[in-house]
Amino acid sequence: MKKSLLALAVLSATSAYADEGMWMPQQLPQIAKQLKAAGLKLDPASLTKLTEFPAGAIVSLGGCSASFVSPQGLVVTNHHCVYDSVAQNSTPERDLLANGFVAHALGEELPAAPGSRIFVTKEVLNVTDKVVTPEVAKLSGKARSDAIEKNQKALIAACEKDAGHRCTVPSFYGGLEFYQIKQLEIRDVRLVHAPPSGVGKFGGDTDNWMWPRHTGDYGFYRAYVSKDGKAADFSKDNVPYVPQHFLKLAKEGVKDGDFVMAMGYPGRTNRHRLPSEVQFTFDWLYPAFVKASGETLAIIDRETKDNKDTALKYAGQVASINNYYKNRQGMLDSYAGSDFLARKTAQHEELKAWVNGDAKRKAEYAADIAKVEHLIAERDTATKANFNFGYAQPKLLSTAAMLYRLSVESQKPDAERKAGYQTRDLPRIKARVASLVRTYDAKVDKALVMHHLKNYLAQPAAEQKPAFNAALGIKSGMSDAELSAALDKLYAGSKLGNDADRNAWLDKKPADFQASNDAFIKAAVATFDSFMKDEAEEEELGGKLQQAYGSYMKAKIAFMKSRGQAVYPDANSTLRVTYGNVAGRPTGADGTTWTAFTTVNGIAAKATGKGEFNAPQAQLAAIKSKDFGKFVDPKLKTVPVNFLATLDITGGNSGSAALNAKGELIGLAFDGTLDSIISDWDFNKANTRDIQVDLRYILWNMKHIDKADNLLKEMGAE
Amino acid sequence: MKKSLLALAVLSATSAYADEGMWMPQQLPQIAKQLKAAGLKLDPASLTKLTEFPAGAIVSLGGCSASFVSPQGLVVTNHHCVYDSVAQNSTPERDLLANGFVAHALGEELPAAPGSRIFVTKEVLNVTDKVVTPEVAKLSGKARSDAIEKNQKALIAACEKDAGHRCTVPSFYGGLEFYQIKQLEIRDVRLVHAPPSGVGKFGGDTDNWMWPRHTGDYGFYRAYVSKDGKAADFSKDNVPYVPQHFLKLAKEGVKDGDFVMAMGYPGRTNRHRLPSEVQFTFDWLYPAFVKASGETLAIIDRETKDNKDTALKYAGQVASINNYYKNRQGMLDSYAGSDFLARKTAQHEELKAWVNGDAKRKAEYAADIAKVEHLIAERDTATKANFNFGYAQPKLLSTAAMLYRLSVESQKPDAERKAGYQTRDLPRIKARVASLVRTYDAKVDKALVMHHLKNYLAQPAAEQKPAFNAALGIKSGMSDAELSAALDKLYAGSKLGNDADRNAWLDKKPADFQASNDAFIKAAVATFDSFMKDEAEEEELGGKLQQAYGSYMKAKIAFMKSRGQAVYPDANSTLRVTYGNVAGRPTGADGTTWTAFTTVNGIAAKATGKGEFNAPQAQLAAIKSKDFGKFVDPKLKTVPVNFLATLDITGGNSGSAALNAKGELIGLAFDGTLDSIISDWDFNKANTRDIQVDLRYILWNMKHIDKADNLLKEMGAE
Repeated sequence: MKKSLLALAVLSATSAYADEGMWMPQQLPQIAKQLKAAGLKLDPASLTKLTEFPAGAIVSLGGCSASFVSPQGLVVTNHHCVYDSVAQNSTPERDLLANGFVAHALGEELPAAPGSRIFVTKEVLNVTDKVVTPEVAKLSGKARSDAIEKNQKALIAACEKDAGHRCTVPSFYGGLEFYQIKQLEIRDVRLVHAPPSGVGKFGGDTDNWMWPRHTGDYGFYRAYVSKDGKAADFSKDNVPYVPQHFLKLAKEGVKDGDFVMAMGYPGRTNRHRLPSEVQFTFDWLYPAFVKASGETLAIIDRETKDNKDTALKYAGQVASINNYYKNRQGMLDSYAGSDFLARKTAQHEELKAWVNGDAKRKAEYAADIAKVEHLIAERDTATKANFNFGYAQPKLLSTAAMLYRLSVESQKPDAERKAGYQTRDLPRIKARVASLVRTYDAKVDKALVMHHLKNYLAQPAAEQKPAFNAALGIKSGMSDAELSAALDKLYAGSKLGNDADRNAWLDKKPADFQASNDAFIKAAVATFDSFMKDEAEEEELGGKLQQAYGSYMKAKIAFMKSRGQAVYPDANSTLRVTYGNVAGRPTGADGTTWTAFTTVNGIAAKATGKGEFNAPQAQLAAIKSKDFGKFVDPKLKTVPVNFLATLDITGGNSGSAALNAKGELIGLAFDGTLDSIISDWDFNKANTRDIQVDLRYILWNMKHIDKADNLLKEMGAE
Repeated sequence: MKKSLLALAVLSATSAYADEGMWMPQQLPQIAKQLKAAGLKLDPASLTKLTEFPAGAIVSLGGCSASFVSPQGLVVTNHHCVYDSVAQNSTPERDLLANGFVAHALGEELPAAPGSRIFVTKEVLNVTDKVVTPEVAKLSGKARSDAIEKNQKALIAACEKDAGHRCTVPSFYGGLEFYQIKQLEIRDVRLVHAPPSGVGKFGGDTDNWMWPRHTGDYGFYRAYVSKDGKAADFSKDNVPYVPQHFLKLAKEGVKDGDFVMAMGYPGRTNRHRLPSEVQFTFDWLYPAFVKASGETLAIIDRETKDNKDTALKYAGQVASINNYYKNRQGMLDSYAGSDFLARKTAQHEELKAWVNGDAKRKAEYAADIAKVEHLIAERDTATKANFNFGYAQPKLLSTAAMLYRLSVESQKPDAERKAGYQTRDLPRIKARVASLVRTYDAKVDKALVMHHLKNYLAQPAAEQKPAFNAALGIKSGMSDAELSAALDKLYAGSKLGNDADRNAWLDKKPADFQASNDAFIKAAVATFDSFMKDEAEEEELGGKLQQAYGSYMKAKIAFMKSRGQAVYPDANSTLRVTYGNVAGRPTGADGTTWTAFTTVNGIAAKATGKGEFNAPQAQLAAIKSKDFGKFVDPKLKTVPVNFLATLDITGGNSGSAALNAKGELIGLAFDGTLDSIISDWDFNKANTRDIQVDLRYILWNMKHIDKADNLLKEMGAE
């Protein structure tokens, strides 16, 4: 029985492998044959060149993907990627979320949300040997973590000598490899166009992760730089950035079966994880997350429902939590009915059998694989203990802790400061501190903290943090009234809610913090040593894990190579390419199948005139009168809205350009489907589809409804 | 332009014609070739024999179709066809609607709702020459109506000399032909089994007329007769009826593409209507009906929501109104986007061109076709004027009017009484009067009457009925309070709401009515002459229409025959046969297609644990544990629930046996789909699908959930 299970697992791993993949551009020559066979008309080798077309037009927004679509720095991405910028420019009087926004001239463009960035990848170098030097390879635990961080920081510092660039040294294959990525960091980002939420968020949370889908999930930013072409802070004197490359809009619409590829920055996948990680995640972590998210959403809803201004402040957070909530629940549902863990276990056993089947391999890997299994169990215990604590900190306390840490780190030479608190990190920290003006409300925050703190205080004493409890004046067994009073005292005793007061702490010295009477600053100072100790313990574990996990992945790659299979690394927010075809699916809701396209007819059918299905009247009128212009699909006889494809994407790919065989823009990836998002862990070829908004729908809305003719002209769509 | 439109119309009429059809059994030899080609394994000629298998097993419930499925008179039909019987046996303490009902022995079976009947068709004779005799053919107007009714009554009286039988002489082809239909009328009908509403009505009004569908729309009656085998009133001494034939259950499940046919009693279609009738119906009548139904439903909901007993009383009416409401709205939606009227007009013009193209034809038909167009316009005017009045009469007033009319008619010899008020009609009238005990509530009735009466009183005086206004003490311009007071006086002044008082009037003489002080009896007497005058006017118009419409249909049949096409008559609640195939549909909701089957997986996905999607816990547990027994479909790997087929059915077909190529039972037809129900007027081959509940789902529920093993054994399913 066990043997046949193993055989089956190998078979399905092999057959699935040919169709999945978030490939690093430099890996594409390895799959050039498949790309050509699938229909790519460009030279696959050209896709590896980051500064040439089309990769040169692909950018990251940090969490979303996007693309240049004009020689004047116009950037297209998803509506949900510009959502916070629309929300932060919205007021009850001028509700851009509800009504949409079109800048008809450069001067009308609005500043994006604080901290908004456009990252243009310039260079990717394998720096594994410079991070894990022979000396580092001898170290373990915290010493290893520290040495790796030191080498990363040194590489980054050298790279960032080129002003206006941001460099990172992320790990690949679970710490086995490191690459140095150099990106132009554009800091003056402006909102150019977003359709009304009745288009951009049509279907809302009800349709999120669903098919059939009718969401116009697109929006436009523009990148601005100084007059001499350098990345710069917002200034009226800045000018639109001239990208090296920008995408051309496809003249012909995409159709069922067509080749399609997407380039973007997928956030995180877990395809190479061990069985114990699968089990912990699906049996404990995701259920806990789903529960906590549901509670958080209910509290925000309750606390904001009578205050439109507060509701607008939390709109972005609600959208984000809802998104992950549905995502994780969807994965749990898929997991419940699957044999994933059994397959994963069988594959892992097979790997171990292969390792143990050869003395040299056994000597090299066997101990590390045993070690990684042990370390993961240790990490899981800590994750469980700290789960409620993660939700239970007042936002102003975590802000105060960040500010105090910044002041402490700032006493050291820049190169010795903790990563995240260096001079290079200051703008992001400042933006984060500033953003609270539009995303924080004390009443909502306290309600959330009260709820999660009660769960935290219900945990055994050994899992609590004495310094934190003492600083907040809280303890297990407190009544709700006592806990509430303790929190009231904290909130009332702090001026960090005041923007000027809060921002002023960015420049203070540790002594200023230590002398402060501000309740949250005091608490941050009081808990500092305890949190530094926790961090050191995490780094001790992290150093051990990096070594052992890297070794496990090395074994896995060698094993796959022994079968003639290349291995792409799990997603880690770096540029990747995925390809596939436009395709419906034979299994839809019971009694249905999925076709590849939805159309505007479906918008009219779903529209209710309110809430999540509040399609604009002007759009409904245009659909009714068939005012479709040149955007009619010849086969569908109407305007397509969204389409399915077999692309391998995940969160972070949002806004990724979907390109045709010639590398022309045909739409924007924006979602997966609920019953296939477990593909983040377990790629299922038959089920997995991603959802794009069709370029023709974007252009039709812009021309026929929102009258964004200036932008159409700029993109050469006229 | 006009010419090409005509050519197109002819083409589509021809190509559609081959796949539609509610055929009279005796017409089947005309389509024997098509039946064989579609896969029928029985001799098509055998289907024409009403007293042989399978037609001998097919029965009517009067409004629904059904079939014998055991040698002991067990009858299977739809849940919604036994709904009133379940409702009327339900109490708040023993809610059979919610919990379902299984009689595990004959003695546990419950009386069906008053007036329930099982009609077994015994003989069908063409009696056109006996109804429209040469003498009748010379008459016009009311004289013609009266003469036709007289001849019908004479035929019926002769036919019904065979005790226990009910005979009818319905018209076919719009009055062109008349058939005498003789049916055994079984009066002792008992409820044997109905699943919980969470199965039988799963999806409720939300899913009604929809796909994908998961409704277990089945229920069982049993026919009882006296010990000597005659139809008889309910008696404990009665015994189960032994039918001449009963259906065998298919041993093999049905699959996509299979031949399927349904035999049943479709109520009414309008495929042969004139363009002006189409226009009036879709531009005026259906919109008015939809509006009035929506208002009626809202009022019933408002008035019953706090009273479970009253809500149960109106449950059947609400289900029925909702059903028609959604049906008519669905037709209106389809009509709005269609070229139906243009095609109908073109076809009609073409018919007239053919008539006028030949002197003999012109002489025979042209004047009648012009006349029918004129008479229809006259009828439409009257329909509009009387629309609100139809809704505005208190139920006890229309009951009083019926009782008084009965007393008046009963003074005449039976043969001379108005059809509907003869001795043969007494049981039905008595049942109707008795049924109010479980379907009437004065508070709800008054609220409904108030609402519709206000619309009636807002009409011009010429469209109102002075005698009715005077009898009720109402007039235009009354305030709500005045109108309400007038109604209160009426309702308070009548004892007809009291069951014994009401039933006592069944035996009274006209003089008793004329002397009565009961408010509704007085009003019925006061309005009698006026309503008789209205009736005479209707009959004048009816006589003219019968002649002219018959002539128009004769022309149409001759025209079709000239093109080699047989013509089936519009449905008129007589036995018909339709055949087709199990088939999904390429057009579903935007972005989807329809597959032919739904499965129990879809029940689990839709179940919410409450309201319309309240699947029983035991069923959900069985689905979860895959407790499917032998009812698993080999391809679907689970239990099928509903399936689509290309059958041509309409209201009245509900409960029709769906038979395979061997005439074995494979399911029960129970619904159409909303975007294809305009096929009642305009059959659309591509779109039209009907919905069956799969026999395997019925049997699985009965065996695995409801433990109705006794019935399974009786049907030979064990």
